[in-house]
Amino acid sequence: MTIFSKIILGEIPSYKIAENEKFFAFLDIFPLVKGHVLVVPKTETDKFFDLSDDYLSEILVFAKPIAYAIERSFPCNRCGISVVGLEVPHAHLHLIPINSADDLNFNRPKLKLSAEELKEVQEKLVEELKVNS
Amino acid sequence: MTIFSKIILGEIPSYKIAENEKFFAFLDIFPLVKGHVLVVPKTETDKFFDLSDDYLSEILVFAKPIAYAIERSFPCNRCGISVVGLEVPHAHLHLIPINSADDLNFNRPKLKLSAEELKEVQEKLVEELKVNS
Repeated sequence: MTIFSKIILGEIPSYKIAENEKFFAFLDIFPLVKGHVLVVPKTETDKFFDLSDDYLSEILVFAKPIAYAIERSFPCNRCGISVVGLEVPHAHLHLIPINSADDLNFNRPKLKLSAEELKEVQEKLVEELKVNS
Repeated sequence: MTIFSKIILGEIPSYKIAENEKFFAFLDIFPLVKGHVLVVPKTETDKFFDLSDDYLSEILVFAKPIAYAIERSFPCNRCGISVVGLEVPHAHLHLIPINSADDLNFNRPKLKLSAEELKEVQEKLVEELKVNS
């Protein structure tokens, strides 16, 4: 079982942002930028484009309100997307508030946020999602 | 009118890869990696997540065979995705064959390919798309 499946099942704790029958969204605990969220399908597929069309057609619609919550919660030009997938063999999409292309550069050092800071980011995003859904 | 709309209308030439009623795919002429393709909706929306749900739900399904053609045509671990959008105010998605996260780093110098090299990349991708569709 992948680490993401364990997170989805609650075997590994996470800062959950949203969930539906197909997807689970939670904070990246090694964020590039404050507000960095992972969106993960509830199916163990390694490569993103090997996801079936029903997952591919729903993931961005699921991500949209989260992206808006990110944009409203953190100072940014807009919410960017990245799909890399070279580390965890479970397809996922990064949502990242960006002000420059460097905010999507996975080679730069990750932020080190405390549990309290991550909790604050989670609460802000969950609150924003409630307000606008 | 955005530069992408001019490309879609054929007012500016491009190395076209694929097209349907909603989307147009063509080579980024300043690629990060050989095989770097842009997927652009045929509607002028600045921010990616401001696209309507019908565009958001179809763009990855449209991109999938192109991503597979990229993976088969260029040596890579997989096809990555990036949505940045800080330069052209017309939503678009980058498909890039990646071997490392640095292949998705928009801060690194772009490749300078000749018209002949771009034409070769185009022909390879179009051929791969034909074989598998």
